[in-house]
Amino acid sequence: MNVLVIGTGAVGSFYGSLLAQQGVHVSVVARTDYEQVRQHGIHLESQLGNYHFVPKHVLRQAAELTEKPSYALLCVKVVEQTNRVGLLKGALGPNTSIVLISNGIDIEEEIARAFPDNELISGLAFICVTRTAPGTIWHQAYGRLALGNYPRGLSEKTRVLCALFEKAGINCTANEDITTARWQKCVWNAAFNPLSVLSGGLGTNEILSAQEPLVRAIMEEICAVAKAMGHALPADIVDRNVETTCRMPPYKTSMLLDFETGRPMETEAILGNAVRAGRNGSVPIPHLECIYALMKLRELRLAHEGNRTCL
Amino acid sequence: MNVLVIGTGAVGSFYGSLLAQQGVHVSVVARTDYEQVRQHGIHLESQLGNYHFVPKHVLRQAAELTEKPSYALLCVKVVEQTNRVGLLKGALGPNTSIVLISNGIDIEEEIARAFPDNELISGLAFICVTRTAPGTIWHQAYGRLALGNYPRGLSEKTRVLCALFEKAGINCTANEDITTARWQKCVWNAAFNPLSVLSGGLGTNEILSAQEPLVRAIMEEICAVAKAMGHALPADIVDRNVETTCRMPPYKTSMLLDFETGRPMETEAILGNAVRAGRNGSVPIPHLECIYALMKLRELRLAHEGNRTCL
Repeated sequence: MNVLVIGTGAVGSFYGSLLAQQGVHVSVVARTDYEQVRQHGIHLESQLGNYHFVPKHVLRQAAELTEKPSYALLCVKVVEQTNRVGLLKGALGPNTSIVLISNGIDIEEEIARAFPDNELISGLAFICVTRTAPGTIWHQAYGRLALGNYPRGLSEKTRVLCALFEKAGINCTANEDITTARWQKCVWNAAFNPLSVLSGGLGTNEILSAQEPLVRAIMEEICAVAKAMGHALPADIVDRNVETTCRMPPYKTSMLLDFETGRPMETEAILGNAVRAGRNGSVPIPHLECIYALMKLRELRLAHEGNRTCL
Repeated sequence: MNVLVIGTGAVGSFYGSLLAQQGVHVSVVARTDYEQVRQHGIHLESQLGNYHFVPKHVLRQAAELTEKPSYALLCVKVVEQTNRVGLLKGALGPNTSIVLISNGIDIEEEIARAFPDNELISGLAFICVTRTAPGTIWHQAYGRLALGNYPRGLSEKTRVLCALFEKAGINCTANEDITTARWQKCVWNAAFNPLSVLSGGLGTNEILSAQEPLVRAIMEEICAVAKAMGHALPADIVDRNVETTCRMPPYKTSMLLDFETGRPMETEAILGNAVRAGRNGSVPIPHLECIYALMKLRELRLAHEGNRTCL
């Protein structure tokens, strides 16, 4: 089986390497670290042991792959600067399933519209993993995946992919209702990602112990929007998120890591799309509106700073 | 007439120098810049022309002044780190009027309780003025004062002080209801001060053009709290604040200046006290709560950073 992983960041490298371990022919499209990955492959430092991942082909563009893959995994941040449709173009044969592994709400529709004839699998990764240098990935904790067809359902190919990840030692849930799962993950993300940035870099534990009511207010508003969109979440989801976060090791969110390294943040995918859903559904979301407006101000300020010398 | 100005920051130096120009004997209590002010006085650069202010006495503590003053002007930030009652102790004779010139809500009660036998005049300064170096003040724009007795009313001594400032060329309003005036000023302060810090340093114009709805939402909540406290504000106050800010030159708020120079911020005086008033009055204030919680997180982070080398 051929798989193409687009993006050799932390997520693409990690999950691609697991498939390669199962005998899948995994090729990658690398962007900024093309030379490094082509010459040296990808080094992974993980709780599961350190290992090396040598992709079958290392490409600059998906179209360079002559044999079209069974699955094209798009593992990139959902940010304005990244043209996801452009990255997928040329990668797809008629039987290629597109697999999106990324955070956020309403991130599938653009892809579904651009490639209406390809199966679209939507995925969520519950993982702490970071690219520490070009071609070097540090898998810090966790690793669970959830995969399901967009907008809902479970195809045979989705089950096959889940099974491959399970064989690789990863807990991979085949989820009939991945859209609801996205809202469920957003409960945590919409609170801790922006607050970590707006606080100037606090960890999740510090945020929670100092301002639990704010965290809960944001989470409750996400639940209200999800419900209005037809994706009611479990009644105890806020309590569970708070409890889980208390037990987590001190953790820097992905948005904070992006902020600190001057990379674009997933503000729209994680927060903006939830806010727009809330507005459309006339759901009162004052805390989300406030946090979202502040993130836009923070981004505006970052844009003014340009090439900062001082983070 | 003797006047003691406690605090040789921007506000104390500026208004003290105006009284000295009117023939008042103005002494000052200097803290961090005692040596500079004692040896060289205070240099003021102003639209009104540059000039020099030599206080009659430069003191380390108010108690050093042998002849008790008619007015003791307390011109310090209202922050936890500054013991305002301690600064006033020893300054007051039985006929000394205390004059507070500072931002914030509910900042008088602590002083009124500590010195129940002295007249208490509460004041607001509408001014852009900065201490650029020890003993050096830059008066950038504006200068209007509002003075009134706490909690309300206008004494003869308050009128006399107003007249002195008016003679010095400053628009000084004698305000029968200074508490309402404080809420009125808070409308602007509670929005732009925190947003300038949380945005990472945007000017008032940039904040307003990018996120006017957030600015208005915060201002409306301050109006609602003020009304619940019995201080209804003019119906058009939010519109007027927005219009005025559009016409102002690009302006760094006092909280942003404090933030950038690592000084304590008036978060509690400007925002925390308004939030507590809202809670006591059961006024819905989700935007204020959100902004306040974020400021507390930002301050927590600053405390962790300790002696920052990089701002």
